[in-house]
Amino acid sequence: MIRAGIVGGTGYTGVELLRLLALHGGVEVVAITSRAEAGRRVDDLFPNLRGYYELVFAEPEVSLLANCDVVFFATPHNVAMQLVPELLAAGTRVVDLSADYRIRDASVWSQWYGEPHSSPQLLEQAVYGLPEVNRDSIREAQLVACPGCYPTAIQLGWIPLLARGLVAPAELIASAASGASGAGRQAKIDNLLSEVGGSFKAYGVSGHRHLPEIEQGLQDVAGGPVAVTFVPHLLPIVRGIHATLFGRLLEDDTDLQALFEDYYRDEPFVEVLPPGMFPQTRTVKGANRCQLSVMVPQQRDTVVVMSVIDNLVKGASGQAVQNMNIMFGLPETQGLELIGLLP
Amino acid sequence: MIRAGIVGGTGYTGVELLRLLALHGGVEVVAITSRAEAGRRVDDLFPNLRGYYELVFAEPEVSLLANCDVVFFATPHNVAMQLVPELLAAGTRVVDLSADYRIRDASVWSQWYGEPHSSPQLLEQAVYGLPEVNRDSIREAQLVACPGCYPTAIQLGWIPLLARGLVAPAELIASAASGASGAGRQAKIDNLLSEVGGSFKAYGVSGHRHLPEIEQGLQDVAGGPVAVTFVPHLLPIVRGIHATLFGRLLEDDTDLQALFEDYYRDEPFVEVLPPGMFPQTRTVKGANRCQLSVMVPQQRDTVVVMSVIDNLVKGASGQAVQNMNIMFGLPETQGLELIGLLP
Amino acid sequence: MIRAGIVGGTGYTGVELLRLLALHGGVEVVAITSRAEAGRRVDDLFPNLRGYYELVFAEPEVSLLANCDVVFFATPHNVAMQLVPELLAAGTRVVDLSADYRIRDASVWSQWYGEPHSSPQLLEQAVYGLPEVNRDSIREAQLVACPGCYPTAIQLGWIPLLARGLVAPAELIASAASGASGAGRQAKIDNLLSEVGGSFKAYGVSGHRHLPEIEQGLQDVAGGPVAVTFVPHLLPIVRGIHATLFGRLLEDDTDLQALFEDYYRDEPFVEVLPPGMFPQTRTVKGANRCQLSVMVPQQRDTVVVMSVIDNLVKGASGQAVQNMNIMFGLPETQGLELIGLLP
Amino acid sequence: MIRAGIVGGTGYTGVELLRLLALHGGVEVVAITSRAEAGRRVDDLFPNLRGYYELVFAEPEVSLLANCDVVFFATPHNVAMQLVPELLAAGTRVVDLSADYRIRDASVWSQWYGEPHSSPQLLEQAVYGLPEVNRDSIREAQLVACPGCYPTAIQLGWIPLLARGLVAPAELIASAASGASGAGRQAKIDNLLSEVGGSFKAYGVSGHRHLPEIEQGLQDVAGGPVAVTFVPHLLPIVRGIHATLFGRLLEDDTDLQALFEDYYRDEPFVEVLPPGMFPQTRTVKGANRCQLSVMVPQQRDTVVVMSVIDNLVKGASGQAVQNMNIMFGLPETQGLELIGLLP
Repeated sequence: MIRAGIVGGTGYTGVELLRLLALHGGVEVVAITSRAEAGRRVDDLFPNLRGYYELVFAEPEVSLLANCDVVFFATPHNVAMQLVPELLAAGTRVVDLSADYRIRDASVWSQWYGEPHSSPQLLEQAVYGLPEVNRDSIREAQLVACPGCYPTAIQLGWIPLLARGLVAPAELIASAASGASGAGRQAKIDNLLSEVGGSFKAYGVSGHRHLPEIEQGLQDVAGGPVAVTFVPHLLPIVRGIHATLFGRLLEDDTDLQALFEDYYRDEPFVEVLPPGMFPQTRTVKGANRCQLSVMVPQQRDTVVVMSVIDNLVKGASGQAVQNMNIMFGLPETQGLELIGLLP
Repeated sequence: MIRAGIVGGTGYTGVELLRLLALHGGVEVVAITSRAEAGRRVDDLFPNLRGYYELVFAEPEVSLLANCDVVFFATPHNVAMQLVPELLAAGTRVVDLSADYRIRDASVWSQWYGEPHSSPQLLEQAVYGLPEVNRDSIREAQLVACPGCYPTAIQLGWIPLLARGLVAPAELIASAASGASGAGRQAKIDNLLSEVGGSFKAYGVSGHRHLPEIEQGLQDVAGGPVAVTFVPHLLPIVRGIHATLFGRLLEDDTDLQALFEDYYRDEPFVEVLPPGMFPQTRTVKGANRCQLSVMVPQQRDTVVVMSVIDNLVKGASGQAVQNMNIMFGLPETQGLELIGLLP
Repeated sequence: MIRAGIVGGTGYTGVELLRLLALHGGVEVVAITSRAEAGRRVDDLFPNLRGYYELVFAEPEVSLLANCDVVFFATPHNVAMQLVPELLAAGTRVVDLSADYRIRDASVWSQWYGEPHSSPQLLEQAVYGLPEVNRDSIREAQLVACPGCYPTAIQLGWIPLLARGLVAPAELIASAASGASGAGRQAKIDNLLSEVGGSFKAYGVSGHRHLPEIEQGLQDVAGGPVAVTFVPHLLPIVRGIHATLFGRLLEDDTDLQALFEDYYRDEPFVEVLPPGMFPQTRTVKGANRCQLSVMVPQQRDTVVVMSVIDNLVKGASGQAVQNMNIMFGLPETQGLELIGLLP
Repeated sequence: MIRAGIVGGTGYTGVELLRLLALHGGVEVVAITSRAEAGRRVDDLFPNLRGYYELVFAEPEVSLLANCDVVFFATPHNVAMQLVPELLAAGTRVVDLSADYRIRDASVWSQWYGEPHSSPQLLEQAVYGLPEVNRDSIREAQLVACPGCYPTAIQLGWIPLLARGLVAPAELIASAASGASGAGRQAKIDNLLSEVGGSFKAYGVSGHRHLPEIEQGLQDVAGGPVAVTFVPHLLPIVRGIHATLFGRLLEDDTDLQALFEDYYRDEPFVEVLPPGMFPQTRTVKGANRCQLSVMVPQQRDTVVVMSVIDNLVKGASGQAVQNMNIMFGLPETQGLELIGLLP
């Protein structure tokens, strides 16, 4: 059994990790931390877990965590980077669900997150945990930086086209929408049901923190500069991300449906829908799955890709477990055989 | 033109008052206060009001408010009772949407609200602003205490039966449900869309603050003690209260449909639906209206009354305007000819 | 492997059965029928199932179904009762999720369902599939009638009190609310998002078809007549039932919390929450679980029980699988280790 | 008083027209038709209208309608074009909310709507009822074709840019999302709350019927060919459209904020939000208002415009009343002083 710790277990990615790990079969969660809830039973805060855990939230101390084979950080940014150096030194492997190690350039990180990076020496070493791109490096990694939710949905949609040079890389457009759980379990007026319910809006249009991450990932695939206009929107639902991607086609001979199907044929968690079927967020609710459609409306020269994930699963905790499976040599799908809750 | 002030204009009852008063025709809002937002334009916070107000939030100072003909308190409890004595002394009339003057007995108030009442001498003088019961007293009142949202829906449903002594007063049961806006515009995890969305629960079962208010109002009508088992629930919607009331019938000869229709025949804002039609919260969304149904399922001896209101309108700001209209001798329906937004 | 067939696989209980059975481990679904969709791939209609089934909808023919070890009916009423006699004769066991065999008295059935019962001779033989009451009979049953969703939530809440004679059996009140999936996957204006979304209402107040089923089940437990005033409401959510039960206590010496905990101590799918914690529908979303709270507000003489289930799981397809597990001697929890999707 | 008739009064644009006209002050609705509901009281179907109308649905007969000063068609396509010729001949003016007269080229209409146009001779005469573009022609029109909901939101967003030639007209991208009421009050599985609730998806990507209407309108403004890639999405809310528009800027010297503010300075129902504020659908819920934001993210060369309307008001019935006001010489804002229901 892999002995796992979770830092920051009171948020939505924390409870989702607990849901997935409870039934994983190869992992025992031996420590879960929260400053605010230290001493409280986990299933008192999250009664869906009753019967599955006897855990109590503990203070986040390195001595406790270093005792684990793997530690998940389900924290806001700027927490992991304080603790990870010591954990790595102790031989513990880390799967960071936060943004701390996603951007390779510390100055870019600082520009978007508004503070200096406290362990920039680890940025080179951290592996960006998108298995569909970096599976081999993840296998050996000590430190995996799980992608953000939008970046997961958007990159998986663009990659087949950019890898083949089929779209103009400087004119990419991503219109995406997320459920409210993406904003985390924090007391903010902006995320009240009374503010968000029955409404829809764009936000962060001038620059969302996921933008540099998206561009970095796509540049790696494209082998050159890309520019993305990224407009996120807030959906009045709890879970789900839908990305609608627009690109200018550079040639029109390729069978895009076949291209996508080939590209993801062996991926256990990425699916290309048949022509004419478009993805819905509900289809992947609770599942570690990305569903994609590609088409060229009106036979013009703009390609449209649609991509859906559950932001808390393939966009966060499910992908974290997938990374852990790869890191520890387990079957990649272990504990992730989940079917979307439809309806 | 009546010169009106609003204390606590950043909450949901505040913005709803502004919506109603903008089109009222007989009122000018000359002052609106908020400590937190002082200096900010009202329509910057509430862009639905753009074009209707040039107002800027001000600090809540008595000098400013005493200059008004009427001041509305759209505040949490424990604010009005600090300022009202001075305002009344200055001759300003007050419509308090908060709980401060709803309970006549200061010790009961303190027991439920957890602090001493700072102006108990006004409790006798305050008129409980349920126009269907107290219209005449409201006309002359200096200080009107607007009923809570649940108490409005529940009392209007019980009154015809209790006034006629048709149900057992010590066995009343009220199962009610409210939209999330009833919890106010406050940063609390419990009211996040991610917590409330797509879910339903009871809360406050051991004792909700509206219970003593409901029992006080019903006792006045029944002319003796009543006991209500009141279970509120939280709906994953923004606006609306639905109360389902159960009572043991003391006789079975009365035509309850006719009783209800007669009782409310002249009320502009209470409607009894035809037999077989049940109220929906959406039907009164945005409207100052209570819709009621009454029936005896299976011809047994339990009567069921269903009552709906928009918690922010007939349950708060609309009723406040209705009270103001009565206090100032305007037509009671002025500014309140609003039709529910269906769908 | 148990060979299973599903009749009526295009509805919500059908797709939910498929979700549960895909990961069950002891069952192979070998046939699924639908007149309307015959010839269409199941995962074309329900893309959440892609990768888990190669099944195609077939015409509902007895020859196909009689070949199964067990056949689930996920149909509207009046379908199972046409086919079940032949299937039983062929030695196939049947788990009926519809209402056809829930009521023991054929004349009562006809009165509520508006047509004669076509196989009343089987009503005696059918076992009512509430495992918490009838586990032993289910084990040997050829034909199990799965309880309705409301009856499951409501009976589990009342049973401990009625079994001990603690509440007045003729004055039971059940105020319950269901998500829209309870109405099935049928094209009706009343269930459009535009009709139901953002609203709440009671329905079926004069008499819901689940009423005789609830009363029959409770009478068995109480050992005498009961009368329930049952008011169902429609929630603007997809999944979940919440029942709020009110009863007049006949004595006040019993520790009700302890009573409930004792009563359900060994039940794998019924949980009594600690004092002061109330159930939420989201906590059991997707899980085969009933969570209960019991309390006596204000120390008066009315007891309140709150009960939640997912109407499609413990209220339908999960309970059907639970029954199948019992019938075939499998561990009762096999395939049902599901954790509620919170948030 | 203008005597108005409504054809097809059982849909959502019908009930919304009734809501608006009830309080208009200058209009009396004298006839409302519905084949399916003929003989039924209007307020029995739509109880939000109780107290405002005594109307009963009638069969749609020309003799009844020709008696009106103006007839609104709140019907699916292919109804108005059967009746309008006779009404115009009788001197009745027509405001058609359906698609029948929006496209000037009958063959284009037939291609998108799948049937021949039965009164193509009127297409030239019909005025496209977007007052911000065609106010003068509307004044004199006998027949006004109200724009579709998406076309209203999208055109109002693009027009200032296209009128000035600031964006590449052949590369326009519109990613838009609509509440479910846009699909009408029709019994379809696809629009059930259980299908749509808590989910999000694109639809009609290969070609939505509003595309030719959008391109026709934008070409008029641009003075040359335009091409729009239009992807509509379905929101799990009742009301509201949000359009996010992307265009390649042809120059970067223009102050776009000032351009938009100037362009719409005198428009009563179009508002440009201050820099940094983005529109929300809830802000215009129930109001005849379009709110717009414009910005250039990251100072690159892609402009983003966000546009919101209530699909049933500025996207349908409100715009219809606005057109009627213009046609009959009333103040354009009469009956349309409505404030969005926030929250």
